[in-house]
Amino acid sequence: MSDQPLQGFDGHYGLQLTTATADEVRGAVEIRDHHLQPAGIVHGGVLASMAEAMASIGTWLGVREAGNVAMGLSNQTSFLRPLTSGTIQAVATPRHRGRTTWVWEVEISDDQKRLAALVRMTIAVRPHPDGLVLPDPQPE
Amino acid sequence: MSDQPLQGFDGHYGLQLTTATADEVRGAVEIRDHHLQPAGIVHGGVLASMAEAMASIGTWLGVREAGNVAMGLSNQTSFLRPLTSGTIQAVATPRHRGRTTWVWEVEISDDQKRLAALVRMTIAVRPHPDGLVLPDPQPE
Amino acid sequence: MSDQPLQGFDGHYGLQLTTATADEVRGAVEIRDHHLQPAGIVHGGVLASMAEAMASIGTWLGVREAGNVAMGLSNQTSFLRPLTSGTIQAVATPRHRGRTTWVWEVEISDDQKRLAALVRMTIAVRPHPDGLVLPDPQPE
Amino acid sequence: MSDQPLQGFDGHYGLQLTTATADEVRGAVEIRDHHLQPAGIVHGGVLASMAEAMASIGTWLGVREAGNVAMGLSNQTSFLRPLTSGTIQAVATPRHRGRTTWVWEVEISDDQKRLAALVRMTIAVRPHPDGLVLPDPQPE
Repeated sequence: MSDQPLQGFDGHYGLQLTTATADEVRGAVEIRDHHLQPAGIVHGGVLASMAEAMASIGTWLGVREAGNVAMGLSNQTSFLRPLTSGTIQAVATPRHRGRTTWVWEVEISDDQKRLAALVRMTIAVRPHPDGLVLPDPQPE
Repeated sequence: MSDQPLQGFDGHYGLQLTTATADEVRGAVEIRDHHLQPAGIVHGGVLASMAEAMASIGTWLGVREAGNVAMGLSNQTSFLRPLTSGTIQAVATPRHRGRTTWVWEVEISDDQKRLAALVRMTIAVRPHPDGLVLPDPQPE
Repeated sequence: MSDQPLQGFDGHYGLQLTTATADEVRGAVEIRDHHLQPAGIVHGGVLASMAEAMASIGTWLGVREAGNVAMGLSNQTSFLRPLTSGTIQAVATPRHRGRTTWVWEVEISDDQKRLAALVRMTIAVRPHPDGLVLPDPQPE
Repeated sequence: MSDQPLQGFDGHYGLQLTTATADEVRGAVEIRDHHLQPAGIVHGGVLASMAEAMASIGTWLGVREAGNVAMGLSNQTSFLRPLTSGTIQAVATPRHRGRTTWVWEVEISDDQKRLAALVRMTIAVRPHPDGLVLPDPQPE
């Protein structure tokens, strides 16, 4: 993996990928003030965003050679434990790789490996006539 | 509503609230480059984050006088239409106000009022002994 | 609508359809002992089943003329109020009719029109080479 | 486990439990005509019902000694592969055991151990002043 930051929203909130394949995607976010909601815990949207990005990238890595693109269909995030500091760790694993949809489970934990959220992502796989061509997520 | 920006993550990505009551929360985000994912459409995490914030704030406005706090339990976002430019409009409406959970439906649309995403948010209502005291979302 | 009972699982638990179009599906189940779980309230699976059937039938009515079939992709049921007796009333409304997926919201209520559950159904639309040909839901 | 059938809805559609503890619940349903939807595949409601029952029973086994009851809050079922014959196998595993909610992941497979559905169940844990006392799921 390159050390270059991700672009767009993932770069904006600070996602860092340490593994990105069609079999597993691992990512992390160092908690900073701009990740918090008013009560001082990490905003649930940060966790949902991490899962969204990681499942989309993993799917795309698995389907791009066939000329397909990946687009999120649904994001189902359950919040289990509030996070306040340290690094958010996420691991995404594909549970279903269909012709038209992939389904991933994403586990999000704190530094002590305590589960903080579970996310099920459903990603649509579509041919890319419509211009939705994803560039490589980690350019050199 | 005050014109002051929201703090924390909601301010970071640019949520603006135009209505915030326990009966309805309306918000918007002007699409900028830092909201996009690699294919050039708005990152699904932005939409999930908007719904998360709006349902949490609306619940908190309804329960704070009884000494309670609001925390997201689950966020179920279905993506219906990609967004690329303009302003993201969101309207959150409570469908259930229970003693321990509130459930909101959040509709997210584009400038032409075309539905882009549906979000069901489940928010836990809890007594606040644990320090999760939400400040006013729009300080003067 | 015909008065003939539905076949298969929907007939088994007792779903009755009073409206079935691509724009709205209405159904009901009269609560009997075989719908209850051990605590004496209606089993959540009955509510999930009603929504599953109604959204699938409604989608199929909207896509069959183009030679397509409808298959459930996901069922997200939130339980808001326990049901114990009377008739379960359900109304399904399409919120998105895409080329490859339809999304429905199903509201489930008791006899006093109090909301008991909210269901979001995502239905896949697929060409039917594979034999998944749904017969007419209401045979004369 | 006793061989006596479950009562109520679970008995009606034919759920059989082979393991039921607070750490794991295993169940099965032999597919018969009354489980099918009009296209001849197993009705999605059967799979949602199995998960609902199994996660509720498992939670209740874990909280009843403290005088609590278990009630389904949400059922999120993703359908991955249609089932047509044989036995439906389901395994429910708790991923979070909180004071007020438990979260289970339920994997549903066919006879060849191919994944047919994933279900995330959120179960509320509540004190039982209100009469929701679940009897033992497998009476001798």
